[in-house]
Amino acid sequence: MDASTQTSPSAVDAEVVTRLATLLVGFGANVQPDQIVEVRANLEQTALVRKIAELAYRRGARFVDALYVDPWVRRARALDAPEDTLEFAPQWERDRLRQLGEQRCARISIVPLVPFTALEGVDPVRAGKQPTLPESFQLIVDRTTNWTLGPGVERSWAQRVHPELGEEDAYARLWADVIHVCRLDGADPEAAWRERFAELTRIAGALNDARFDHLRYRGPGTDLTIGLLPTSIWTTGTETTVAGIEHAPNLPSEEIFTAPDPERTEGVVSSTRPLAMAGGALVTGLRVTFEGGRATRVDAERGAEALEHQLGRDEGARRLGEVALVDATSRVGELETTFYNTLLDENAAPHLALGGAYPQTVADEDRGRVNSSIVHVDFMVGGTDVEVTGVTRDGREVPILRGGAWQL
Amino acid sequence: MDASTQTSPSAVDAEVVTRLATLLVGFGANVQPDQIVEVRANLEQTALVRKIAELAYRRGARFVDALYVDPWVRRARALDAPEDTLEFAPQWERDRLRQLGEQRCARISIVPLVPFTALEGVDPVRAGKQPTLPESFQLIVDRTTNWTLGPGVERSWAQRVHPELGEEDAYARLWADVIHVCRLDGADPEAAWRERFAELTRIAGALNDARFDHLRYRGPGTDLTIGLLPTSIWTTGTETTVAGIEHAPNLPSEEIFTAPDPERTEGVVSSTRPLAMAGGALVTGLRVTFEGGRATRVDAERGAEALEHQLGRDEGARRLGEVALVDATSRVGELETTFYNTLLDENAAPHLALGGAYPQTVADEDRGRVNSSIVHVDFMVGGTDVEVTGVTRDGREVPILRGGAWQL
Repeated sequence: MDASTQTSPSAVDAEVVTRLATLLVGFGANVQPDQIVEVRANLEQTALVRKIAELAYRRGARFVDALYVDPWVRRARALDAPEDTLEFAPQWERDRLRQLGEQRCARISIVPLVPFTALEGVDPVRAGKQPTLPESFQLIVDRTTNWTLGPGVERSWAQRVHPELGEEDAYARLWADVIHVCRLDGADPEAAWRERFAELTRIAGALNDARFDHLRYRGPGTDLTIGLLPTSIWTTGTETTVAGIEHAPNLPSEEIFTAPDPERTEGVVSSTRPLAMAGGALVTGLRVTFEGGRATRVDAERGAEALEHQLGRDEGARRLGEVALVDATSRVGELETTFYNTLLDENAAPHLALGGAYPQTVADEDRGRVNSSIVHVDFMVGGTDVEVTGVTRDGREVPILRGGAWQL
Repeated sequence: MDASTQTSPSAVDAEVVTRLATLLVGFGANVQPDQIVEVRANLEQTALVRKIAELAYRRGARFVDALYVDPWVRRARALDAPEDTLEFAPQWERDRLRQLGEQRCARISIVPLVPFTALEGVDPVRAGKQPTLPESFQLIVDRTTNWTLGPGVERSWAQRVHPELGEEDAYARLWADVIHVCRLDGADPEAAWRERFAELTRIAGALNDARFDHLRYRGPGTDLTIGLLPTSIWTTGTETTVAGIEHAPNLPSEEIFTAPDPERTEGVVSSTRPLAMAGGALVTGLRVTFEGGRATRVDAERGAEALEHQLGRDEGARRLGEVALVDATSRVGELETTFYNTLLDENAAPHLALGGAYPQTVADEDRGRVNSSIVHVDFMVGGTDVEVTGVTRDGREVPILRGGAWQL
């Protein structure tokens, strides 16, 4: 199927597209007058991108740079480009990222950028080889841009999530899912998010007060301890730039996360949900073994090579940079659906990330100790069947999640 | 109408798209192994862009950067952006253009980038205000990139050209026109172009041998003399980069052109065909009066403001940078059709350009005398009813075009 034939939303969608665009521009990125706004999306998302552009200009944006990704050009590269060029990116792409930060721009990205169908049948190792630009991660670390990531509903994704439904029904159903998880169903989505973030901030406060030495995960196929740093700070889904602009980097966001000690992860963790790599490859049945903080072994039913390739990019790629907790009252968790999309799935269940940490999740004195890598791969640990326990420095065990419910 | 709903070509088109892409990649840009290839097109052109990417990668391209222009994001800017931002371009856009030259890249652009329908009803002065980047013209002057410009058939354009036909018929007819003018109908389009360019090179040689002092144009509403420089060189539609790569900057190209003396144009010229400005505005019934080389007066039935805005950008914008001759045996001229697209229309009839000259159209000693401007606006002078005469330094008159036929 050619994705480009289906970019026009039905009349039913137009109002929902406006609600989603309004949330992303006004609350997610919180676009300011005179800012440059970069919008990244694939060619399915023309209706959403155009609405974002219109709303951003109406807020006084100086320039909206709409960058469309064509998944089929990406496919042509994966199929036909010389092997040794697959990770090349032109200098101007790196310069742009640097300048986005220097010029304090706003950024809005719509995922998935590359839908599943675009890379079907491509050698997964070739498909997984793509440029990873350090400037991209640095932008997040530097907190120079007010940015957000939102979901873009498209038919190929909808059919993956709801294969039992026909094309139109699956599409309508995925829109309904997105309306639910992005809280677009109420009168004031922004107010709904402020309320949810306040609730998560309370739990994060309790976690910070407890100052755990390490966490313990127990569940089917999982027996893992993760050491925390002395100043690991539990953080929720709002962020403030160095210029003082509040924004919500992920919509939806139901997680409370921090940076672990990259030297102190031990044991085995099984991922209960499929992991969709940025390159389009799907990793299922993932099982990772850690020794001394390092992922020494990666097994998967499918897609292990694509993940291994990422983990081979630098030394930090094999260590944890993020540990995130999610309770089962999250709107994503409620749906009990696998979305094959990290933005949504990571909000259904506790997850971990291999690769670079967000330095703001520790205090200054530990900033040199967090994990560093150009890679950041989130994977889900499990659902309500995984127990998470905090262990204090003096050995006291404090239940954090049981049956998906906060115990704090 | 939303242009994005119609990007998928019918099965009938797929083979033609391949022929056009093959001509543009192989002959137009002449993509070399290990080159970066920039492809610019609007969202209607996904089928052509994807085929170009595939063919470029198969020739060993290191990277294909597909840059899609969304005309509706452009419309949102023209409608809603703050007035004083309309000519802003981000620094990274200028850096990219500079680097395309420094890194000796290939470039393929598909026009129109902004179809007519996208800017309908927008204040023409606002629509005409858009960034003009000096780096863009400099790339051509420096001859660092092997580049080409080709036509992208789309329904809104087809209906403008063939309003008497229904949507599908107009689309099919415009494809037939493009097949004809791009010489895609024969067994070997590239060989057909080599033959045509050889023919034009013979005429250009005769013009260069004659070494005219000035040209005289006579026709309905036109009485104009254009002084040439001592070393004005008549040139045809092939070019060679500083690295020695041959390419055809425009496909189709039926013109023989040179740089005039920017100080010696006198009289009045009427444009017999509509001029589609890069900003999307349409100028019709154009009449320009020159004194001492300078366009001192611009009249038009419609769209004069958009042109006046361009001409106000710098001093050189009001002087001629190019004079081009086209005979009536050109495949575009044969069709007797107005395409509302400079790439095609300029190949139907003799034309002039206000703004920057191509320095390679004079010898070194005159390079400082050609016109300089960030603007380059081509407009058609007329058809077979305009007589073009060359006048030698000693006053001898030599007919060049009569009834659209070469007299040399």
